[in-house]
Amino acid sequence: MPFRLDVNDPSFPQDFQALLGMKRETTAEVNDAVHAILQDVRLRGDAAVIDYTARFDRMTIDAERLAITAEEVDAALAACPHHLLDSLETAAERIRAYHAKLVPEDLDYVDETGVRLGARWRPVAAAGIYVPGGLAAYPSSVLMNAIPARVAGVKRIAMVVPTPGGEINPLVLAAARICGVDEIYRIGGAQAVAALAYGTETVAPVDKIVGPGNAYVAAAKRQVFGTVGIDMIAGPSEILVVADAANDPRWIAADLLSQAEHDTAAQSILITDDAGFASRVAQAVDELLAKLPRGNIAAESWNTNGAIIVTGDLAQAAPLIDSIAPEHLELAVDDPDALAARVNNAGAIFLGRYTPEAIGDYVAGPNHVLPTARSARYSSGLSVLDFMKRSSLIACDENSLRVIGGHAISLAEAEGLGAHALSVAIRLDVADD
Amino acid sequence: MPFRLDVNDPSFPQDFQALLGMKRETTAEVNDAVHAILQDVRLRGDAAVIDYTARFDRMTIDAERLAITAEEVDAALAACPHHLLDSLETAAERIRAYHAKLVPEDLDYVDETGVRLGARWRPVAAAGIYVPGGLAAYPSSVLMNAIPARVAGVKRIAMVVPTPGGEINPLVLAAARICGVDEIYRIGGAQAVAALAYGTETVAPVDKIVGPGNAYVAAAKRQVFGTVGIDMIAGPSEILVVADAANDPRWIAADLLSQAEHDTAAQSILITDDAGFASRVAQAVDELLAKLPRGNIAAESWNTNGAIIVTGDLAQAAPLIDSIAPEHLELAVDDPDALAARVNNAGAIFLGRYTPEAIGDYVAGPNHVLPTARSARYSSGLSVLDFMKRSSLIACDENSLRVIGGHAISLAEAEGLGAHALSVAIRLDVADD
Repeated sequence: MPFRLDVNDPSFPQDFQALLGMKRETTAEVNDAVHAILQDVRLRGDAAVIDYTARFDRMTIDAERLAITAEEVDAALAACPHHLLDSLETAAERIRAYHAKLVPEDLDYVDETGVRLGARWRPVAAAGIYVPGGLAAYPSSVLMNAIPARVAGVKRIAMVVPTPGGEINPLVLAAARICGVDEIYRIGGAQAVAALAYGTETVAPVDKIVGPGNAYVAAAKRQVFGTVGIDMIAGPSEILVVADAANDPRWIAADLLSQAEHDTAAQSILITDDAGFASRVAQAVDELLAKLPRGNIAAESWNTNGAIIVTGDLAQAAPLIDSIAPEHLELAVDDPDALAARVNNAGAIFLGRYTPEAIGDYVAGPNHVLPTARSARYSSGLSVLDFMKRSSLIACDENSLRVIGGHAISLAEAEGLGAHALSVAIRLDVADD
Repeated sequence: MPFRLDVNDPSFPQDFQALLGMKRETTAEVNDAVHAILQDVRLRGDAAVIDYTARFDRMTIDAERLAITAEEVDAALAACPHHLLDSLETAAERIRAYHAKLVPEDLDYVDETGVRLGARWRPVAAAGIYVPGGLAAYPSSVLMNAIPARVAGVKRIAMVVPTPGGEINPLVLAAARICGVDEIYRIGGAQAVAALAYGTETVAPVDKIVGPGNAYVAAAKRQVFGTVGIDMIAGPSEILVVADAANDPRWIAADLLSQAEHDTAAQSILITDDAGFASRVAQAVDELLAKLPRGNIAAESWNTNGAIIVTGDLAQAAPLIDSIAPEHLELAVDDPDALAARVNNAGAIFLGRYTPEAIGDYVAGPNHVLPTARSARYSSGLSVLDFMKRSSLIACDENSLRVIGGHAISLAEAEGLGAHALSVAIRLDVADD
C-alpha cells in the first residue's frame, strides 16, 4: 500500500516531512574498491581494464578487442527491425532540434566606459559517455547523452558500454551510429570510468564524463571529478502527478506505474483534490499491475515508496510540489499553465491530460536525464550547457583603463594586494616608484 | 628560480607534461573531522555551531549573537573611508550590469508536429555565501558571489563569515550591504557550511552554497553536496601571460606577481617568443619582489611554481594554452583576438597590453571566481547560471500525441518498459486490452 496523506489531517506536516525525508537509495559502500580499481587502471592502463573486464563481465578480451568496430556496428544495425530504427531516427531528430535551441549565445560589447566585455562559449574537446549494459541498456539513453554533446560541438565522443558475457543490445549500437558516435569500447564499471578519465594505451582521456551507472560507476565518477568534469549522480527515478477528478483514473495509474516499473527504489506520487478519485486511481494501479511485464518491480516500488496526497484544492499543491522538487511533474488539470507558473522546482513539467511522462522519455525532444532526489531545487536536466564552458573576455585600452583603473587600485590596496594595484598603476604611470 | 622551458628543446614534451602534472595543492586529510562536525551540527543545531565557534574562532557567543545586526553593519559602513565605498559601489554596479547580460532566456514554442516545448529558468529559492575571515576576507569576493545570486533573482541570501577573535573587516560588511545581503552570521568553517545545508534553530537551510574557503570548508562543501548544490571547489590561483617583446617587461612582471602574491601555491606562467624578453621579465620580477608588501609570498610562489616557456613563434602558444587551461589568460600581443580565437580553454581572457588581470578581479564586471587546476577544460566561472535551474516544458494535445506517440510506444516496448508504452497507448485508445 502506498502512503496516503491528507492536508487536512492534523498529522500532515509530520507525515509530509517523513515522505520528504525517505531514503530510497541504498548506497553500497564501494568507495575503497573503486579507489583501488581507479589507481590500478591509472598505473597499468589497458592491462588493468582487461583484467577487470574478465573478472566483472566474464569476458576475455585483448587490447585489440576493446573497441567495437564499425563492422560490428553495421551488423548490429542490420539486426534491428526497421520500424525501431525509424523510431530512433525520429527521436534523434527531435532531440537534436530541441537541444539546438538551448545553445547559448556569445556576448561581445563595449560599455559606456569604453571597456570591451564578452562571454564566449566553447564545447569541451572530448566527452565520454557511460552506457549501462545488461538490463538497463537503453538505446534512448544513448540518444539523450550523446546528442547534446554533438549539438554543443564536441568533436570527440567516446562511449563505453559493458557487454557482460559478450552480449550487447544491438539497438544501443544502432543509437550510437545514429548519433554519429563511432568510438565505442566494450568496457564498463569503475574500470571504464578510469580509462576515460586517465586514458590508457587504447582509450585517449576525455574532459567530461556523463551517463548513468550502478553504485561502482557513480562512486568512480565522484572520485575522478576534478580530473574530468562529470554530470549529475542520478538517483532512482521519480514522478509527481497532479490530477483532478476529471481524469481517467487508468491514465493516471499508467503514468504512476511508468516510473514505478523502472526500479523498486523509484517513487510515484499522486496529488489530487478528490479523495474518491484518489481511491479510483489506487484501484486502477492494482488492476494494471497484474498485466504489466514488470509488474513485480512496479508493485514493490508503488507499495514501498508510492504516495497519494489529498489536498483541499489544487492551489495547495504548489508549495508541496516545490518541497518535493520532483524529477518529473505531470499537471493533468484544466489549466496546467496557471499551476506551472506557481511551481519553481521540477526537472521537467508535463502539461495537460495528453502529455504522459513517457513521451518525454523518448521523442518529445527535451532530455530525459533530469535531477532526482530533490536536486531540482538547484540543478537542471542534461543539456548542451553540460558540454560547453564559458570564457569571459575583457579588453581595456589606455583610456578605458584610466576610467575604471583607479577603483581597482583602491580596492587592491584595501585588500593588501600590492602587485594587483601595481599592475594597474604601472600602466597608467601612477605607480609610486 | 621559476622553471624555464623552450619548445625547441628535445626535452620539451616531458618538461611540459611535468609542468602540467605539478601538484600545488596540499589537500589536508580533514574528511573525518569534517564529517563529525557536520553530523554534530545536524543533530544539535545552534548549540554545536556555538561550541565549534568557541573552539575554532576563540569566540564565546550565544544564539542571539550568531547574526550580525543591521546596526553592526551600519557601524561598519560608517568606519569605511568614503573613497573605498565609492569604489565598491562602482564595482558592484559594473558586476551587476555584466551579469544581467548573462541571464538566460526562456524558451516556449510549438513545433511542426503541434507539440509545445519549452525551457524555463527559475532562481534557486535560497543561497548561502561563504566568505572567509581573517587574512583572506576580501570585500571583492562578497560582490562576486552575492551579485550573481541577486541578478538571478534569488530571494534569500544568507552570508556566513567567521570573525576569529571577534574581528571582521568592515569593508566585508559594507560590501554585503551594497549587494543587499542583510542576513549575515558570524560563523565559519565546516560548522557554518553545516548550518547552511541542514539548518539550525537560527539559520534556515539554503538550496545552494557558494564561496571559497580553507580545506575544512572545501571538504564540508563536498560532503553536503546532494543535500544542497555547491559551486566549484577553488584551487590556488593561476595566470598565464602570453607576451611578445614589444611589452614593457615591468608591466608583465607585475601581472605575473599579481597572482603569485595570493598564495605560495599560486602559479604564474609566461609564454613568449623572445628569449631575451623572457630574461628581462624575470629580472623585472626580481626587482619588483623586493618592493612588494607580500613579496615573500610572491617570491615563494614564483620560484616554486612559476614558469617561463619560450616558443618559436606565438602561433605555437595556442595548443600549450589549451593544455594548461589557465584560470586567467592574458594576451599582451598585437592581435589578441586572433590568438584568442584559437584558444578553447581559459576561465577569463584579458585582451591586449592595457588589460592587466587585476582589472578583472575588481571592476571590469565579469566574475573573478573562475575554474582552476585545468578545470577550464570543462567548467566556467561563477555566473547567474549557478543560481538558476531550468525546467523543461512539454505539452501534447490529442493530435500531437498521435503524431509522435507511436514512436514512444515502439521504443518503450523495445526497452521492455510496458507501463511507459501503456501510458501513451491508453490515451490514443490503442492499448492492447
